[in-house]
Amino acid sequence: MAPTSTARGERHSRSERETEFARIVAFTDGVFAVAITLLVLKLDVPNLPSGLEPRISEELLRLWPTFLSYLLSFAVIGRFWVAHHRFFGTLDGFDARLMNLNLLNLSLIVLIPFTTEVLDDYGEQPAAPILYASVLAAASLVNWAMVHHAHRAGLVRDSGDRPGHSGLVVGTAVIFLASIPLALIAPSYAPLVWIAALLVRGRFMS
Amino acid sequence: MAPTSTARGERHSRSERETEFARIVAFTDGVFAVAITLLVLKLDVPNLPSGLEPRISEELLRLWPTFLSYLLSFAVIGRFWVAHHRFFGTLDGFDARLMNLNLLNLSLIVLIPFTTEVLDDYGEQPAAPILYASVLAAASLVNWAMVHHAHRAGLVRDSGDRPGHSGLVVGTAVIFLASIPLALIAPSYAPLVWIAALLVRGRFMS
Amino acid sequence: MAPTSTARGERHSRSERETEFARIVAFTDGVFAVAITLLVLKLDVPNLPSGLEPRISEELLRLWPTFLSYLLSFAVIGRFWVAHHRFFGTLDGFDARLMNLNLLNLSLIVLIPFTTEVLDDYGEQPAAPILYASVLAAASLVNWAMVHHAHRAGLVRDSGDRPGHSGLVVGTAVIFLASIPLALIAPSYAPLVWIAALLVRGRFMS
Amino acid sequence: MAPTSTARGERHSRSERETEFARIVAFTDGVFAVAITLLVLKLDVPNLPSGLEPRISEELLRLWPTFLSYLLSFAVIGRFWVAHHRFFGTLDGFDARLMNLNLLNLSLIVLIPFTTEVLDDYGEQPAAPILYASVLAAASLVNWAMVHHAHRAGLVRDSGDRPGHSGLVVGTAVIFLASIPLALIAPSYAPLVWIAALLVRGRFMS
Repeated sequence: MAPTSTARGERHSRSERETEFARIVAFTDGVFAVAITLLVLKLDVPNLPSGLEPRISEELLRLWPTFLSYLLSFAVIGRFWVAHHRFFGTLDGFDARLMNLNLLNLSLIVLIPFTTEVLDDYGEQPAAPILYASVLAAASLVNWAMVHHAHRAGLVRDSGDRPGHSGLVVGTAVIFLASIPLALIAPSYAPLVWIAALLVRGRFMS
Repeated sequence: MAPTSTARGERHSRSERETEFARIVAFTDGVFAVAITLLVLKLDVPNLPSGLEPRISEELLRLWPTFLSYLLSFAVIGRFWVAHHRFFGTLDGFDARLMNLNLLNLSLIVLIPFTTEVLDDYGEQPAAPILYASVLAAASLVNWAMVHHAHRAGLVRDSGDRPGHSGLVVGTAVIFLASIPLALIAPSYAPLVWIAALLVRGRFMS
Repeated sequence: MAPTSTARGERHSRSERETEFARIVAFTDGVFAVAITLLVLKLDVPNLPSGLEPRISEELLRLWPTFLSYLLSFAVIGRFWVAHHRFFGTLDGFDARLMNLNLLNLSLIVLIPFTTEVLDDYGEQPAAPILYASVLAAASLVNWAMVHHAHRAGLVRDSGDRPGHSGLVVGTAVIFLASIPLALIAPSYAPLVWIAALLVRGRFMS
Repeated sequence: MAPTSTARGERHSRSERETEFARIVAFTDGVFAVAITLLVLKLDVPNLPSGLEPRISEELLRLWPTFLSYLLSFAVIGRFWVAHHRFFGTLDGFDARLMNLNLLNLSLIVLIPFTTEVLDDYGEQPAAPILYASVLAAASLVNWAMVHHAHRAGLVRDSGDRPGHSGLVVGTAVIFLASIPLALIAPSYAPLVWIAALLVRGRFMS
């Protein structure tokens, strides 16, 4: 059941070092949980001058694009978490490279509250959706690299679902990269592509 | 003991995939823990001009409605966490729909620090308690949908306590929805209904 | 080994519901971890006008009381966490009242970043150390109530260390309450009492 | 397999108190996860006056040193976490001193978002890289003290890798301390030493 030990020696089997595997997962889940919750810190309560408080209802309604970008990023981080959860569920062990790729992945996920705020403040400039899409395309590629490495290094319990899984994460990268030219022409429409992709992928992936 | 496998194939039994179930729970607990702690970031230390520092005691006392709304939201998030904890304690497995509903639930819980700040700053305008109550009513309904789905899909270990549990979460939704008309007439009184409901529910639920 | 079931019926034995016990602990640890880390958000980087950047070294040195109050609060939250950790290590089960007391405890711990900032900004006014000491005295009393309730309800595995433990938490409450009159006369000296208490208690408790 | 009980009595074997050991690890992971995610809160979205929004692309590009210091600190916290993870994987038990050293270690890790912001804002003044390097050198020394204490107190499962591990953490401290004189002469170059060290150490440590 334990994977055969390779010459590398640094590889850890999941059964042998269950606790250490659990810690990597716990740390990763912690970072995802904090990042997804920090999104809400970017929602600023409108600051109305004294006497104009009754306008708060209009001001809150005017925030709808902000709420929408909040929900989009919540769904994006949630989807990356689900993908991570699934991929790690297939693992039998880990090695140093996988841990480094996982940290690289987290460093991109943690940027999402920032890119969301840029998108919300400057969504009509091409730079905002390009930054947003680039970070997510990079995260998808790092996810793909993790899946690829895990299969090559024999860290996966049953390699049956490999083409499906890595196909899906490459697909996600392609969608985000493909939205970049669109962002150059019509920046405000790029998020619609991502939402459509989330809805369609969500169906296929779940 | 493991639930019978359905045609869907995507269902995961709790015993088979204990680790994955544990991760969903850990991620959820992490989001709840961060959201409940972020409430305190909304407490701003009074900024008194040089020379007026001795007034800090009056200023702190004047913050009591803010402390009250902090405590209210702490209790609300705490209560939703307890309900989640209890519901997940009855589960034998999970599926993709349950995970999506759980993420939707979290996206509403994470909004509470924002709705609390709006309530604290604009509590005398109807919009503030309506927003606060709507988010919580929506969260209650998503909780109800989770319970309902879990029973229908056979994910629950012992379905004995179903009517009780889902009755309680529907009841919570009703209380928050019912406070909306009150908020239109007398916004400042809506929180009193919620506090009363928390105290009464708290007794029944615990 | 499992505690005898009482008439209450609501009690959960630790062995029967290991997972649920683990979740309460995980949620509690999450709140402690976020609260202790949020302390650093209160450290503001000095904002020097252009041309005066070389003064940053003096400005950082001038921040030493802020660093000291950061360290004090870090040690305080750390000590409360250690006490919680120890107390929960003696438990054999939990009930609804214990969970509510635990939430109440957390609602006070989470206030510490706020009371630390007040202490740092207004440490020479009596109100600041009084607020700080009151929150910690209240937290100590809630801890004492948890220990007391757990013993009375038979939730503790071995009740041998009861007098010691509850004596210690009551002692902590007494120290913080006793520092309040001092804060009225010489506010700046109150933190010294707490630091001394931490150093002495730390030795006894560890 | 359980360590022999010493006269101290306060020592806890890992196997006897698996749950308590797991909590220390969970709390530590939580603090690391929050600290690493808070780094992103220091990334401020440029605030352009109305009409100048098209300049956002230049403004984002001008942020590259900020992104670089974000990545550097992400890698630093990640590397300290990996070292902690590895060290705790060798432990068979813990005692009060180890817990106190662990809290001290965390109090330094949690400062990194602050020292990163200082470095980003005042990187051309010697004080900024000196503060950054000092906190990390202190954290390395505390890590070394943990390893040293664990071996002396017999808390380590197999003491074979002692010289290697403690040599590595001392080496990290030496690198950060050695960069302090450089920071006095050429502050902007100090981060390059750290990045080089991370890349080289990363290779040796993984």
